[in-house]
Amino acid sequence: MSLRSVLEAASQQQPQQLAHLFELLRIPSVSTGADHAPDMERAADWLLRRMQAIGLQRVHLIPTAGHPVVYGEWLAGGAQLPTVLIYGHYDVQPVDPEDEWHSPPFEPTVRDGYLYGRGSSDDKGQFYAHLAAVEAFVRTRGGPPINLKFFLEGDEECGSPGLEPAIQQNAGELACDAVVISDGSFFNAQTPAIGTGVRGLTYMEIEVRGPQHDLHSGSYGGAVHNPLQAAVEMLAALHDEHGRVAIPGFYDRVRSLSDAERSALRQVPFDEAQFLRDEVGAPALWSGEAGYTVLERITARPTLEIHGIRGGFVADGQKTVIPASAVCKVSMRLVPDQQPAEIARLFEQRIRQLAPPTVQVVVRAMSYADAAVVDVNSPAIQAAVVAYRQGFEAEPIFMRSGGTLPVVPYFNRILKAPVVLMSFGLPDDNLHAPNEKYKLEHFYRSINTSIIFMEEMASRKP
Amino acid sequence: MSLRSVLEAASQQQPQQLAHLFELLRIPSVSTGADHAPDMERAADWLLRRMQAIGLQRVHLIPTAGHPVVYGEWLAGGAQLPTVLIYGHYDVQPVDPEDEWHSPPFEPTVRDGYLYGRGSSDDKGQFYAHLAAVEAFVRTRGGPPINLKFFLEGDEECGSPGLEPAIQQNAGELACDAVVISDGSFFNAQTPAIGTGVRGLTYMEIEVRGPQHDLHSGSYGGAVHNPLQAAVEMLAALHDEHGRVAIPGFYDRVRSLSDAERSALRQVPFDEAQFLRDEVGAPALWSGEAGYTVLERITARPTLEIHGIRGGFVADGQKTVIPASAVCKVSMRLVPDQQPAEIARLFEQRIRQLAPPTVQVVVRAMSYADAAVVDVNSPAIQAAVVAYRQGFEAEPIFMRSGGTLPVVPYFNRILKAPVVLMSFGLPDDNLHAPNEKYKLEHFYRSINTSIIFMEEMASRKP
Repeated sequence: MSLRSVLEAASQQQPQQLAHLFELLRIPSVSTGADHAPDMERAADWLLRRMQAIGLQRVHLIPTAGHPVVYGEWLAGGAQLPTVLIYGHYDVQPVDPEDEWHSPPFEPTVRDGYLYGRGSSDDKGQFYAHLAAVEAFVRTRGGPPINLKFFLEGDEECGSPGLEPAIQQNAGELACDAVVISDGSFFNAQTPAIGTGVRGLTYMEIEVRGPQHDLHSGSYGGAVHNPLQAAVEMLAALHDEHGRVAIPGFYDRVRSLSDAERSALRQVPFDEAQFLRDEVGAPALWSGEAGYTVLERITARPTLEIHGIRGGFVADGQKTVIPASAVCKVSMRLVPDQQPAEIARLFEQRIRQLAPPTVQVVVRAMSYADAAVVDVNSPAIQAAVVAYRQGFEAEPIFMRSGGTLPVVPYFNRILKAPVVLMSFGLPDDNLHAPNEKYKLEHFYRSINTSIIFMEEMASRKP
Repeated sequence: MSLRSVLEAASQQQPQQLAHLFELLRIPSVSTGADHAPDMERAADWLLRRMQAIGLQRVHLIPTAGHPVVYGEWLAGGAQLPTVLIYGHYDVQPVDPEDEWHSPPFEPTVRDGYLYGRGSSDDKGQFYAHLAAVEAFVRTRGGPPINLKFFLEGDEECGSPGLEPAIQQNAGELACDAVVISDGSFFNAQTPAIGTGVRGLTYMEIEVRGPQHDLHSGSYGGAVHNPLQAAVEMLAALHDEHGRVAIPGFYDRVRSLSDAERSALRQVPFDEAQFLRDEVGAPALWSGEAGYTVLERITARPTLEIHGIRGGFVADGQKTVIPASAVCKVSMRLVPDQQPAEIARLFEQRIRQLAPPTVQVVVRAMSYADAAVVDVNSPAIQAAVVAYRQGFEAEPIFMRSGGTLPVVPYFNRILKAPVVLMSFGLPDDNLHAPNEKYKLEHFYRSINTSIIFMEEMASRKP
């Protein structure tokens, strides 16, 4: 049967596929913390059953140190056809601040052409397109035109701590000619972007311990170093006056942007005023690291961010407390060739240098992820370009992603397979924030794009 | 009947009085926030009924803009006897972090001679002693030897915002020769302290608004000024390298310590090492404002403290969020003659000066309280000295309190009555912190001390 019939079948299946996605989105599979352990199990179980219903084979869980990977495959094409491993993650970010959601995060709803709900774009809505594509092939031609391996992990939002050994131990089973990851976004509403790299991450916690218990500021203020004050003094010293990260050695290994890369980035149709207005909404953009453009800073330069400071009294009203301790959450986005564990050591050294003798400071490394670059000349990348042109009627650009996908370096290194960062989200999908959304049109077009990609791959020797 | 019989009656009543106090402590009368509005009513109602049962007259509520004052009086002594107004507050601090309490904050329990529970020392346990004293007089002699007015407020922990107008409007009804306030602590376990002054307070909130909603640090880190970073940069600039508050004009009106006061403070039996070990428990004391001793800094010099920073992700685990906003709670303890509203203006000017153009900064003044000094030569102070000597078998010292009691300047100014700061708590009672406690021996001795004080007052012309 022609590809058109497959696409038509996908079109007819749209209502059922959306209903399936709703079911998956209703499961609050938050991986961080232990509160949602049963929901994580329910999400994995739902995927096992859905894969079996579609007709995938050897559907099973691959255990990891954390939540299991859901695996399923279609290898009926045989050795002469290429094998593509499709990666996705069924875990989602926490939902707080929950009161800022306009509709409950785990009751997906469609408003104005957007599907709202935690995980709609990151990543359930995106990876599900590939399952829907396979189902369209199965219902029309009996199966997809290439070999496929689905690899859906459950710890992406925690930094995938147990994934590397799991890939290593199952490297034979996971062998493939290319890896497709759909877990990011277009460059803008009109322009798909094929990622040429991802940033790494080092996530740290600083605990500042002062008095043995909370104290009354009236009785002790002036004699005790308030842990919150010690914390803000240290945190404020982590950037210099030029917006650079003020950690000795932090930039030592940073691979400089080549003239070609900088020139390519200047070609990207990026409108700072529009970015500020439509995506950010702050009074002004931050000047950030001196000497680099906004686009360079959000994709190809390392950064440091404070994510939260726990301690003391933050509810409405007043309390005059000197808290016993303050816990600061800080992460750094890294670029090639920065090494996450080394950065953690440099960070800790800097904090030790800044820590006053009036408090006890504990520094904890929470997770690491390597930065990576991808081979833009692989046949799979060419197939993705064609798929975007037809599926979205748009020409994709090539650009580094500022985000982190720990699996990219794992797949590069362990499976020696080229990675295709083929995203379907939009930049304003509110990832990791209240009111996460996913454009419904993108959900349907991404199914078509996946179908075309698979068909294109069938004709290309890997 | 002799004073001894009154004290014996008080001694016999100890079990019932403790049971009464337990009932009051079980009511979670947290005044800040609206969650506990019904509990505030229950606490006021309990006090009305208890006062009536004791035999006080004209027991009623005095409305304020906030929670009402519970009032009751005993004026049978007539105009030739002095009238003492006894102030207390029936509201308590919030209990968070609740998981750090070893027993539930509103289930009072006695362990090792201490009564544990929120409000046990601040202030239910302290002011209740005076009610118990009156009851001992009523049951033996038919009534106390002086005229009394009980004035128990419900907004002390919110900064008593509605109290000044309420005192003004009822100045006639509240007229008295002296005011007794028992809402503080001994200097140390052996030494009662009669307060010679209280610090004022200006409580501020700074809201730093950046992006219109939370953003993903992978996509926006480096281009957006993280509100938490902007906040820590401003907060870190509120102290200079000498530990002084870095707000222009902040010290302009500060009344210097006289040589006599500094010399008196040097006489106080204060052991820094013991203070650090037993009360603070931090690795070291803070050097604080250069040029002043610890005792000067915690009682007679102004300070600035950060109480909490809300925004971003602070739960266990990891979230790579750039929060839309950060809210900082900051207060300043003030000394004579600093003016709280002027300090709020200077604070706001400083924040405006520090605020970067990349964020919107809103500064809110939450509450004001004046500093005050008290007349140490009033007859009531002399009566208090005698009462401490007999009730606690200890010689009291005179010392400024570092805490804030907005009512002290109100009573001074509106009622023109000398204030006696006559405290029964201990410095390590964990006020405003988990595991607030009150020494049971102090509860019983404070009832005797109040009885002796009332008897002493009867013989002194005000």
